[in-house]
Amino acid sequence: MKGFSLSRAACWAGSPLGFLAPGSPSPLLSHRAKAAGRMAENGLREKILTLESMNPCVKRVEYAVRGPIVVRALELEKELQQGIKKPFTEVIRANIGDAHAMGQKPISFLRQVVALCLCPELLSSPIFPDDAKKKAQRILQACNGNSLGAYSASTGIDLIRQDVARYIERRDGGIGSDPANVFLSTGASDAIVTILKLLVAGEGLGRTGVLIPIPQYPLYSAALAELNAVQVNYYLDEEHNWALDVGELRRALNHARGYCQPKVLCIINPGNPTGQVQSRQCIEDVIRFAMEEGLFLMADEVYQDNVYAEGSQFHSFKKVLMEMGPPYSQQQELASFHSASKGFMGECGFRGGYVEVVNMDPDVKQQLAKLVSVRLCPPVPGQALLDVVVSPPQPGDPSYQQFQGEKQAVLKALAEKAQLTERIFNQAPGIRCNPVQGAMYSFPRISLPARALERAQELGQAPDMFFCMRLLEETGICVVPGSGFGQKEGTYHFRMTILPPLDKLLTLLEKLTQFHAKFTQEFS
Amino acid sequence: MKGFSLSRAACWAGSPLGFLAPGSPSPLLSHRAKAAGRMAENGLREKILTLESMNPCVKRVEYAVRGPIVVRALELEKELQQGIKKPFTEVIRANIGDAHAMGQKPISFLRQVVALCLCPELLSSPIFPDDAKKKAQRILQACNGNSLGAYSASTGIDLIRQDVARYIERRDGGIGSDPANVFLSTGASDAIVTILKLLVAGEGLGRTGVLIPIPQYPLYSAALAELNAVQVNYYLDEEHNWALDVGELRRALNHARGYCQPKVLCIINPGNPTGQVQSRQCIEDVIRFAMEEGLFLMADEVYQDNVYAEGSQFHSFKKVLMEMGPPYSQQQELASFHSASKGFMGECGFRGGYVEVVNMDPDVKQQLAKLVSVRLCPPVPGQALLDVVVSPPQPGDPSYQQFQGEKQAVLKALAEKAQLTERIFNQAPGIRCNPVQGAMYSFPRISLPARALERAQELGQAPDMFFCMRLLEETGICVVPGSGFGQKEGTYHFRMTILPPLDKLLTLLEKLTQFHAKFTQEFS
Repeated sequence: MKGFSLSRAACWAGSPLGFLAPGSPSPLLSHRAKAAGRMAENGLREKILTLESMNPCVKRVEYAVRGPIVVRALELEKELQQGIKKPFTEVIRANIGDAHAMGQKPISFLRQVVALCLCPELLSSPIFPDDAKKKAQRILQACNGNSLGAYSASTGIDLIRQDVARYIERRDGGIGSDPANVFLSTGASDAIVTILKLLVAGEGLGRTGVLIPIPQYPLYSAALAELNAVQVNYYLDEEHNWALDVGELRRALNHARGYCQPKVLCIINPGNPTGQVQSRQCIEDVIRFAMEEGLFLMADEVYQDNVYAEGSQFHSFKKVLMEMGPPYSQQQELASFHSASKGFMGECGFRGGYVEVVNMDPDVKQQLAKLVSVRLCPPVPGQALLDVVVSPPQPGDPSYQQFQGEKQAVLKALAEKAQLTERIFNQAPGIRCNPVQGAMYSFPRISLPARALERAQELGQAPDMFFCMRLLEETGICVVPGSGFGQKEGTYHFRMTILPPLDKLLTLLEKLTQFHAKFTQEFS
Repeated sequence: MKGFSLSRAACWAGSPLGFLAPGSPSPLLSHRAKAAGRMAENGLREKILTLESMNPCVKRVEYAVRGPIVVRALELEKELQQGIKKPFTEVIRANIGDAHAMGQKPISFLRQVVALCLCPELLSSPIFPDDAKKKAQRILQACNGNSLGAYSASTGIDLIRQDVARYIERRDGGIGSDPANVFLSTGASDAIVTILKLLVAGEGLGRTGVLIPIPQYPLYSAALAELNAVQVNYYLDEEHNWALDVGELRRALNHARGYCQPKVLCIINPGNPTGQVQSRQCIEDVIRFAMEEGLFLMADEVYQDNVYAEGSQFHSFKKVLMEMGPPYSQQQELASFHSASKGFMGECGFRGGYVEVVNMDPDVKQQLAKLVSVRLCPPVPGQALLDVVVSPPQPGDPSYQQFQGEKQAVLKALAEKAQLTERIFNQAPGIRCNPVQGAMYSFPRISLPARALERAQELGQAPDMFFCMRLLEETGICVVPGSGFGQKEGTYHFRMTILPPLDKLLTLLEKLTQFHAKFTQEFS
């Protein structure tokens, strides 16, 4: 480092010790002495914030959906842009459920309303329909200063909480929802982490344990690592279409009681990454189990509008809980999460979401309101967009036909893509895929030859990471290794979104299955 | 609770114990036994998530800016709406720096660009100017799928990071800024908490200590409570216009070394709630101190465009650091925060912000990128808006005149309001107010008579909370007690935003000073 002499370094490195009273203990001392030592070697002070000194909980966080494979995919995209030759002409990011990135067009009415809120001068232009204008005026009247640019209440705009509650009531066949139990959030992820944050306490054997499905959506493992909570795995049954079995829940719980205080049970329905849709009976069983065992229920229901398989139907935990009657309906604590990022609208970028809490202690609800107030408020454009999602055009409204047309087209295409994906994967030797009943992903199991496992071990990679990396390098297809979600030992999977347009998806599936065949041959 | 019999309760309350192997230790046991006991009393199971069982760190969080006084203000608003008679006709929320809520109009160009991004069909309409259209097209081309509805990279859209870096370079007279060091965020608050999260580690005497100014913006104390870090107070010098004195920093640091590992120094410049603007010399001294003592610097510079006083000028920590040359410029670690919520635009609702990190260890930067990826991405409409803030219309562009006119009008009005506030407060006996050199607040010191202190003590309230609550109930004016920000013992203050329109602000100041006189008389 030019211009920095050792004597100057010594000058400042020595001074802090001078400020300590003689003999006073300093936990900094050994660290600083070591730092000074290293500095002497290379003429540089050691950094204050290093891998060694940083928060160890953050270091443990892993998030496969945007992990190393995605970093590599972005690099490859840049290399392609620079004209570097590859065996493919574009990178297909099938790693994440991001509808618009895959070419899905926004639902017109949603965007019109938010644009009108942004530029109220558009209200006097004939460019947008009247129902969009009415909706925008209604939202603006509920905003502080009639502006999306003002902070809202930290729990979200009151009117929108009310609209969400009415939406939940319609969804649940009239079962009541109190707007005071609805907290808007910065996407569902934010709400999930916030509720977990409330729940995590204790030390050592008393540390909060949280039961999560395996395979899971890695937000859960990441949040638990960050909060230093204990992750307790229960395994979904791949042989029975990723069913949730209460016997397995009980096994996991009893085992966990030996090393932590299990207090929370997380359910993802429809499943991410696994795509199953739970039956009403299964949900009842889970609620009964949670009640018996004293577990707080967290129901991640962000894919509630994404159900495709014949005979499958979404049942909300809230509805089943209420229909079970007392004591369940009066006592079982539940938090249910939803989002504007998935469904038919796929507006991930707006970060709109909410949690409904049920049977939550009123004092804790106050603490929740206090906690969210520190971040001031969820993004207001996202709140506005969410409002349109939960109170869409009604029959007779000028935009009704177009809105329904656009919505149904998206859902119909998704159902076709779910079937196509399942069919093509199951035609391929060495790939087995459960039906994609719901959500936006396929999570096929792949067989990998023994020599591939050896090669992966040599590279220090999980075998399915090795497979996915090779797939990416040779075909430009980016999918996420099953190891990022968790899976039974000795099994290998990947998660792939079904969102690309039908023709592109077909090509992708064909290239992928062909690559698997070639890979299998290469390592056999 | 109707329909819930004791015998049914016993049924589920007993069962978990049955699953424990005989003799196996269970940390749940005593908790559950107690719960079962309480249940027997009232026929109800104890909740799983209670004030007793919840995260104690969350319980310790306090956030005065949206605390009890604001809760009461919202109640009063509802009561007024219901027609309940009050000594006032409206509640004035002067508790928070929320420009649009106080009637400030959005800057047209910002909104036009974001609306165009939302509804690209507007690009072919003559309703918006060409430079807004060009800007929108440029942003959309940088979005995945050309949509604000797609997730962006977790660190923010590359193009916008580049635009932010160019903006920082212009601000700092050409000193280089690397887009790879710019991380976009969900408002500055999000970025501040994220950087603190990286820094907090250790246990007991080794726990990370964070130096924060007193008075402070309570995001800091709240985040430190949540992260279970050690808050180390250094006091700003009210007698010298809230100056920051390195001697006081040293006192605080040396004292803290006895009970924690101080590793971070937070600076708020321009000051919130105190409104001072630091001199270049002061910033140099602080940097030298941080370097000598091995402290990571966090510079909260969200009010950098809000400087009003003659002779005051904003100097960024980054610029001063770089101009000091080696070893400082090459080694001192710094994170500087900025936001779209303040300045002349006041677009709080969009939650757009960023942090620039300087001299950060590359491995830690990777950890930072990983950590932010778990929440997927900052809201994309907020990123788009931020982009327009950092790359505004240039001379010759169709929107230049209007943009400059709107911007200068806001800043000119703020400067007038800053002066007016100072003048009126200082004319009132028992109120003393330092000049509002920058930011958006006045933090006057108020004298409170002894009998008021006694009365407050009887009510278990901080004396300035007692004063502010009475002020609210009698005048409808909502300001935040100084105790929410911290203050020297035996002194009392409140924070009031200067954002209301001039005529309204004048009325507010008169009512407030009259109330203080009346209050003083009442308790003398």
